Amino acid sequence: MNQEQFEIYRHLAGRLIDGQLSPGSHIESEQELARKFSTTRMNAYRAIKQLERRGIVSRSKRAGTRVSAPVNPNLLRQLKCEMTRRICVIHSRNSYEYLHWTGEFRRTLQQALAAEDFTLEDVHLDDVRDRAELKEKLLRLTETGIAAFILSVRGEEDEFLIENSDLFFQYHNKIFVYQSGAMSWMHWPFHTVTVNIFGEGSLAAKYLMEKGIRKIAYCRREISSKNYLDFNRERLLGVEFTMRRLSDGRNKPEEWVGLEQIYRNCMENGSGCGLIVSTDELAARIIDYFAERGAKRPPEMISFDNNSEYDSYRLTTIAPPHVEMAQTLGRLIFDNIDIDSECGFVSYIKIDSKLIINHQE
Amino acid sequence: MNQEQFEIYRHLAGRLIDGQLSPGSHIESEQELARKFSTTRMNAYRAIKQLERRGIVSRSKRAGTRVSAPVNPNLLRQLKCEMTRRICVIHSRNSYEYLHWTGEFRRTLQQALAAEDFTLEDVHLDDVRDRAELKEKLLRLTETGIAAFILSVRGEEDEFLIENSDLFFQYHNKIFVYQSGAMSWMHWPFHTVTVNIFGEGSLAAKYLMEKGIRKIAYCRREISSKNYLDFNRERLLGVEFTMRRLSDGRNKPEEWVGLEQIYRNCMENGSGCGLIVSTDELAARIIDYFAERGAKRPPEMISFDNNSEYDSYRLTTIAPPHVEMAQTLGRLIFDNIDIDSECGFVSYIKIDSKLIINHQE
Repeated sequence: MNQEQFEIYRHLAGRLIDGQLSPGSHIESEQELARKFSTTRMNAYRAIKQLERRGIVSRSKRAGTRVSAPVNPNLLRQLKCEMTRRICVIHSRNSYEYLHWTGEFRRTLQQALAAEDFTLEDVHLDDVRDRAELKEKLLRLTETGIAAFILSVRGEEDEFLIENSDLFFQYHNKIFVYQSGAMSWMHWPFHTVTVNIFGEGSLAAKYLMEKGIRKIAYCRREISSKNYLDFNRERLLGVEFTMRRLSDGRNKPEEWVGLEQIYRNCMENGSGCGLIVSTDELAARIIDYFAERGAKRPPEMISFDNNSEYDSYRLTTIAPPHVEMAQTLGRLIFDNIDIDSECGFVSYIKIDSKLIINHQE
Repeated sequence: MNQEQFEIYRHLAGRLIDGQLSPGSHIESEQELARKFSTTRMNAYRAIKQLERRGIVSRSKRAGTRVSAPVNPNLLRQLKCEMTRRICVIHSRNSYEYLHWTGEFRRTLQQALAAEDFTLEDVHLDDVRDRAELKEKLLRLTETGIAAFILSVRGEEDEFLIENSDLFFQYHNKIFVYQSGAMSWMHWPFHTVTVNIFGEGSLAAKYLMEKGIRKIAYCRREISSKNYLDFNRERLLGVEFTMRRLSDGRNKPEEWVGLEQIYRNCMENGSGCGLIVSTDELAARIIDYFAERGAKRPPEMISFDNNSEYDSYRLTTIAPPHVEMAQTLGRLIFDNIDIDSECGFVSYIKIDSKLIINHQE
């Protein structure tokens, strides 16, 4: 639907919402609408056609176009949602948000969306305690009109949104997911932009292998949540198969869990060992833990997040591709938000992270 | 890399493969190559640059461009693969191939690929009994030069390829997956085209709900393999959440397993019940089973596959989108097969199936 068609659609839907048009009422003819909005008759036709598809009006040669159905609460909600350009971002409740939905990401996305007059509004779920409250909140939101939802989740740590994603599907049909985590949303028909987690592991392994290091350990925390393990397993898969590929099947990684095991194994293996560490935070804690025990930091270590909080550690790190993710999400929204689009594709796009080498002083 | 750059690259790589160039040899200057191939110096530069990136040649102002590394077996394999336009299709060993890799699909894909001079070759794995034999086969294939692999799998029934996908990753870096099954390949960095399984369930539920049917059962066979269950669970999810959406949360489907249970439940529930049946094959078997017991076929039944073998049953069915899948796969291959592309995206695209209503006689 182009901008002119959308204007006419908005005019008609507005009169339905206000109650100016009720079942049996005539709506203006294509000619009248075209004149009123200084546009072509084809544009007026397309706008009316959309209401016909929604089952709201019916047209006949003799009786003209009439409102055929009463506007029930569901239809009302749908019309309101179709009339706005407000995109609502649902923020998850976990503490990693600041690494994920960053200022850089938001600026890039907002710029992309502004080109088509869309605005972003934030909704935080801090006050939502359970499913019933989420349902209530979604009902209230959609009643004010929301063009699309963006679910911003990290995936590995926020189960609540994932478990209740059926409510989003129930109340809206334009849902996009932005996550830096693993695969939890795969089964849903939501367009998704995510990080290539396997690729992150691959990048880290390649970096160490190209420095001639053959003994490599993937280091993570002692956490046993399913999402945390899935996420790390996928990255470890990238490490493992890249090591195999580059060594013709001879080398594969070890997995070290928790500070004490990492410390002990490093002491036993000496300095020839490379560490791939699940987050910059853990890498910083490893350095501190080693320092407390009078040991030097592991000389070959690479971690993930490009977390500015640990800048002073001068870590070699792998940065999430914020700008590319925002651009890709913007493109997915444009391609799929049109109210009469039935494009028939659901895209799940994984984007490569970037290596950032910080040389220690 | 454009066609002219590729011609020069192929010329140089060919001389390396033949052994005409060995470590220390000079290669022609950009000017000489540009003249020889009647092209620009920039195109010659790009072709040489590609060999430099592979670590095969090094250039210096004083000594010109020289071969720096011996061509080891791995590098030789890589060069051979880069020099061809042969795309190799690996066909899985399962019996559903004929519904999946259809003539229509193949014709569309072949046409798309021919536009850029690519050819398709088929490799069947019928003679491959285990991992060692697959490894041997892949080594032999890549030694003859393969531009890319397409893994053609149904996903739900073929575990062998999935379990051994690391071998493909080990021997090649241009891998595409075409499947009509579920999610098994998600963790791999392979571009994938698949069917929107959730969407298929959604489409079936919408069809029955719009006919006013409120009691709906999802019917499947008595099979307990993980892939079969995953696949059906995803489709059932589409049925369930679409029923909920269209009934404001009031209706949800039952799940009936096996011919006897389906028959018994139909008899108890009468003709007002709608059946969503996992395959056309099962739908046909249901009709036969009912007929043997003197019962009429279930009046409201929709199944999946658009399998021509059951045309005589005049089933209402949901057809896999063969043409769209082939076009999308072709596009993914073009976007990502270029030997110097580092586009940094992995796309997993689910495509909507189509409803085909066959009225019974």
